[in-house]
Amino acid sequence: MQMPGAEKPATVWKNALIFTGESPQALLQMGAIRAEAGRIVAIGQVDEDGAELVDCGGRLVTPALIDCHTHLVYAGNRAREFEMRLEGASYAEIAAAGGGIVSTMRATREASVDDLVAASLPRLDALLAEGVGTVEIKSGYGLSVEAEMNMLRAARRLESLRPVRVKTTWLAAHALPPEYRDDRAGYMDQVVLAGLEAAHAEGLVDAVDGFCEHLAFTPAEIALVFDRAQALGLPVKLHAEQLSHQGGAALVAARHGLSADHVEYLTDADARAMAAAGTVAVLLPGAFYMLRETQAPPVAALRAAGCTMAVSTDANPGTSPMTSLLMAMNMAAVLFGLTVAETLHGTTGAAAKALGLQQETGVLRPGLSADLAIWNAASPAELVNPIGFKPLHSRYFKGRKV
Amino acid sequence: MQMPGAEKPATVWKNALIFTGESPQALLQMGAIRAEAGRIVAIGQVDEDGAELVDCGGRLVTPALIDCHTHLVYAGNRAREFEMRLEGASYAEIAAAGGGIVSTMRATREASVDDLVAASLPRLDALLAEGVGTVEIKSGYGLSVEAEMNMLRAARRLESLRPVRVKTTWLAAHALPPEYRDDRAGYMDQVVLAGLEAAHAEGLVDAVDGFCEHLAFTPAEIALVFDRAQALGLPVKLHAEQLSHQGGAALVAARHGLSADHVEYLTDADARAMAAAGTVAVLLPGAFYMLRETQAPPVAALRAAGCTMAVSTDANPGTSPMTSLLMAMNMAAVLFGLTVAETLHGTTGAAAKALGLQQETGVLRPGLSADLAIWNAASPAELVNPIGFKPLHSRYFKGRKV
Ligand SMILES: [Zn+2]
Ligand SMILES: [Zn+2]
Repeated sequence: MQMPGAEKPATVWKNALIFTGESPQALLQMGAIRAEAGRIVAIGQVDEDGAELVDCGGRLVTPALIDCHTHLVYAGNRAREFEMRLEGASYAEIAAAGGGIVSTMRATREASVDDLVAASLPRLDALLAEGVGTVEIKSGYGLSVEAEMNMLRAARRLESLRPVRVKTTWLAAHALPPEYRDDRAGYMDQVVLAGLEAAHAEGLVDAVDGFCEHLAFTPAEIALVFDRAQALGLPVKLHAEQLSHQGGAALVAARHGLSADHVEYLTDADARAMAAAGTVAVLLPGAFYMLRETQAPPVAALRAAGCTMAVSTDANPGTSPMTSLLMAMNMAAVLFGLTVAETLHGTTGAAAKALGLQQETGVLRPGLSADLAIWNAASPAELVNPIGFKPLHSRYFKGRKV
Repeated sequence: MQMPGAEKPATVWKNALIFTGESPQALLQMGAIRAEAGRIVAIGQVDEDGAELVDCGGRLVTPALIDCHTHLVYAGNRAREFEMRLEGASYAEIAAAGGGIVSTMRATREASVDDLVAASLPRLDALLAEGVGTVEIKSGYGLSVEAEMNMLRAARRLESLRPVRVKTTWLAAHALPPEYRDDRAGYMDQVVLAGLEAAHAEGLVDAVDGFCEHLAFTPAEIALVFDRAQALGLPVKLHAEQLSHQGGAALVAARHGLSADHVEYLTDADARAMAAAGTVAVLLPGAFYMLRETQAPPVAALRAAGCTMAVSTDANPGTSPMTSLLMAMNMAAVLFGLTVAETLHGTTGAAAKALGLQQETGVLRPGLSADLAIWNAASPAELVNPIGFKPLHSRYFKGRKV
């Protein structure tokens, strides 16, 4: 006797209002999705044979969300620094009190991998509770070879502890640690590049990032990092044009990088170069909000250039202590003027592209992983409009309910 | 044999970092709290005799939070209107498509009390999941006697369904419904005032509110509402000086009202009058954020005047679709510049005062209800700084864990 689905478990989600995530205009249609062995095999009108049936009751079904830019792994927090700023403390006073990125570096260096995992897991769980199925996690608070590697070891461990796909990013070129204050070249050689080789050898690195800004690293320094990354066959991306125009976006486009992130000070020419290179613009409204910035990313120019726009939390302890991707989506709409459709595409298909995952997840299409979110909502706008509401009905990861 | 606590159940929370909520400066101290029969009886060093012991493990313990200004009960949603605005639709186009407050009025009128309860319960649950123990709920979307009363019947029902204290507010003077477009006086008499009498007779009204704005009601009209409210012995409050200066705050201060809410356009003289009258300024950053307003409430003037400042969600389907009081607190700090201490006082002691509950809840003090929130946090800043994180450890309502 044949046992359909016994060796190749199949699921059909029916009566679903489907947003595929292919594009902002991805047709919303009532239909069904069939998955076998964790992969989508059909969408629209599907065969129900041998499948477990899930009646979505007309609910909105989207790809599981993707948070494509986070600094989720770190120790300590910077709440006291936030409090001091509100009380009128200057940056010098905060630094004197041990604040700033150096405070996170110190706490992170002191933490074991176990400590980092324990500190980060509640933040990961907050994201997953909102329908997230894939999270990018950067290093960048260790600023030594061992501490940077520990951050990525923690990121890999997180993936083993929860039903989530984690993509790791080497971000040693995030800040210059105090011991290298007078030796930028030494930091680049001994930590950023040597550490990248070591971390790559351990299988810890999915992509390479940097912080290109007047208070961080120059385009010339970042180019050296990208050279090494590309020699190792690793994709690149960049924190670019956040506080000023430095030329970082043009650099990442010239390297056909995955994404340029923040991009408040992007030019029209940058947007066109990124579109031509297939480089995604990752918009991070949490930092814009927390820093009370006034120059928003040039959304009209990005649209005109046909540049793909993603949206992410930038979850980090200093400038964006945000563990709600839905809130990032609301802010992208309210503060940056993205449409609802662009916003939802920004955390599905566009975010997948920003991670090089467009053939794996982020879109509902035959052949891709059956990573789905079912929402207590009748339209995408009902995800983007509310603040602080949790409309997730259920989430599926590789075809399994989680 | 004596059975301590059998008739008078006692609980002691020990090893707690206590923020009492009495004032922004309310001393944070490690200590304990003792409650008997749902009331706090001692704080600091307490007798543990006959009490169930709860070890707070050094966690922050605050009064359960109070959301003192919400429009939580309504039917439908305005997500499509939000989407249209982002797509560039004008207010006229949105109105033509059935948007605006009239769309909420229509959906609310069509809803039964059961429907209203079912629609509102998930929103209430979202607030409670963040440590809220008391919620104010206004009418104002029915705009007919029966539909306004149904909203407050639903609010009372919500209180019976969850461990929460609900304070109801009559807000028929919220907008003029289409059928009274040419008969303002008729609406005032037949709905606002007659309905207030009827709702009060049914025990549905704890306070009376109005919307004093150029697009809503004049101070003279609001004065008539306040006259009737005060004749019935009901406290008053007002949506005042949100989009322009109308004189509403001075009016509510002259009546020794509970609160003037929004107050972006408040003057120094208003702030002094409110402070002298004991009228609380309720700050509503969610609407400020959603409307992309640029004039923040005059926090420095409110401080200088010694006016008590509360913080609330203004949860409503149009201008503040926010069901996270922690996010309102974050926005009050980031967008309005409140200190962490002012922000937490704004949702505890100050919010209790805004509801006339200062002898009942919102402060940890002997004699008051044992409404507590225990947080996975070591300081108030760890509640106010994060975005979208849920740091609640546990909540107690009238001494019972909920
Ligand atoms: Zn970042
Ligand atoms: Zn309101």
